[in-house]
Amino acid sequence: MISNKEIKYLSSLKQKKNRLLNKEMLIEGSKLIVDAIKNKKNIKKIFYCYKDENFNYIRRNSKVLNIELLLCSEKDAERISDTKNSQKIFALLSFELPLYLSHNNKISDKIIIIDGISDPGNMGTILRTCSWFGFYNIIMSHNSVDLYNPKTVRSAMGAHFHMNTIYKDSIQNIINFLKDNKYKIIAAHLDGKKIEALTIDDSKWALILGNEANGLSDYSIKSANTLIKIDGEKSMESLNVAEAGSIIMHHLYQLK
Amino acid sequence: MISNKEIKYLSSLKQKKNRLLNKEMLIEGSKLIVDAIKNKKNIKKIFYCYKDENFNYIRRNSKVLNIELLLCSEKDAERISDTKNSQKIFALLSFELPLYLSHNNKISDKIIIIDGISDPGNMGTILRTCSWFGFYNIIMSHNSVDLYNPKTVRSAMGAHFHMNTIYKDSIQNIINFLKDNKYKIIAAHLDGKKIEALTIDDSKWALILGNEANGLSDYSIKSANTLIKIDGEKSMESLNVAEAGSIIMHHLYQLK
Repeated sequence: MISNKEIKYLSSLKQKKNRLLNKEMLIEGSKLIVDAIKNKKNIKKIFYCYKDENFNYIRRNSKVLNIELLLCSEKDAERISDTKNSQKIFALLSFELPLYLSHNNKISDKIIIIDGISDPGNMGTILRTCSWFGFYNIIMSHNSVDLYNPKTVRSAMGAHFHMNTIYKDSIQNIINFLKDNKYKIIAAHLDGKKIEALTIDDSKWALILGNEANGLSDYSIKSANTLIKIDGEKSMESLNVAEAGSIIMHHLYQLK
Repeated sequence: MISNKEIKYLSSLKQKKNRLLNKEMLIEGSKLIVDAIKNKKNIKKIFYCYKDENFNYIRRNSKVLNIELLLCSEKDAERISDTKNSQKIFALLSFELPLYLSHNNKISDKIIIIDGISDPGNMGTILRTCSWFGFYNIIMSHNSVDLYNPKTVRSAMGAHFHMNTIYKDSIQNIINFLKDNKYKIIAAHLDGKKIEALTIDDSKWALILGNEANGLSDYSIKSANTLIKIDGEKSMESLNVAEAGSIIMHHLYQLK
């Protein structure tokens, strides 16, 4: 059985400061746990009070990987869970903090830049879309929402586990890195050209996605090689950033 | 000042049953209220404890439209609000329930069908995207999340006010209506053809968006004239339905 102290610790990981301090996070749901196992993530323990169709896979692999599998009560699950309807199975994962950029960074020629995304659901959705289109390299600005926020993890549906690299730095350092390494910097802006006209002559590109309320930082706009827009009927002020991101990523995926 | 009884009533509108019973909802934030005024929505009262740059517009129009403008306390605002960080200005709106479809329904030749969307954030985002691309006609299946859920209203960012028609019926009746009226029925499915190949020869089309966990109903898939897919790298099981919807709507918008 699981101790009261452990429950308290697991529950404390809902808060960012505790996740960062311990470099540990909790993921919830059997699908996500299966995905973490398949992607060789560092699972420390698994807690459950419900077995679904994935449980046998999880039990088998826990044995092989020497992961402790602990029964908890329904009440424990409620305390640990971040949602109203707990999925009743959890894994404790250790993770590495995103690294700062340096000029020695090895990174793909296709990068998604998260410049101040503040909504955890948007962040997760963007990661999910990145993974769908195979854009596995992310650089985040410091003012972006925590990557391991429970809502972000939930809406990313396992995309965290598919990423090759996730760096974190100031937007100035990110832009300098992209310029030094001759990336074509693409950003969405109302004054841009139509996205349908976007082509990639260079082999390397980076797409910047900006904050929900304030859009891109002036620095990002000024630094972009190509501003693009998504035409619409102008009944709304803007598209949601995750939606705009999906439309642009879909276009970029066609150009690959 | 606002009475305690009124506060209780406004707070009760967070629950679906109370909204439906009274055909009233609360919207929060000055931008949304300005949008409601501009779109001639039926505002009954406005409550505030904070004035931002939109307040003068709201006050002027309240006078013209004979809308009562009431001061509330910070504490009242907290009780009324659905979020942790209240925007401290609210409007009480009356609304009409979505109608059932009938064969006399006048509706556009471009329709978005919501077939069991359950997440209020997704629902709102989809409405926002519909409005962006000028697809102002929606039909929802009965098992979709409430259109006036506070989270839906928040993430729709005023898109509710731009819609021409919103109907609600069983998915069977919706499909029958579309067939009787010779709509081309489009749905996303892994076995479909690539979305880039989608053309609209007919003038009328309807795009069906399905449930987050279970996808489209079998009935929808069977009834679709055209199944389309969005190619990806298969590292994820699926794209989020709002993201898939955005990509498809963007494509349909290009074909208009």
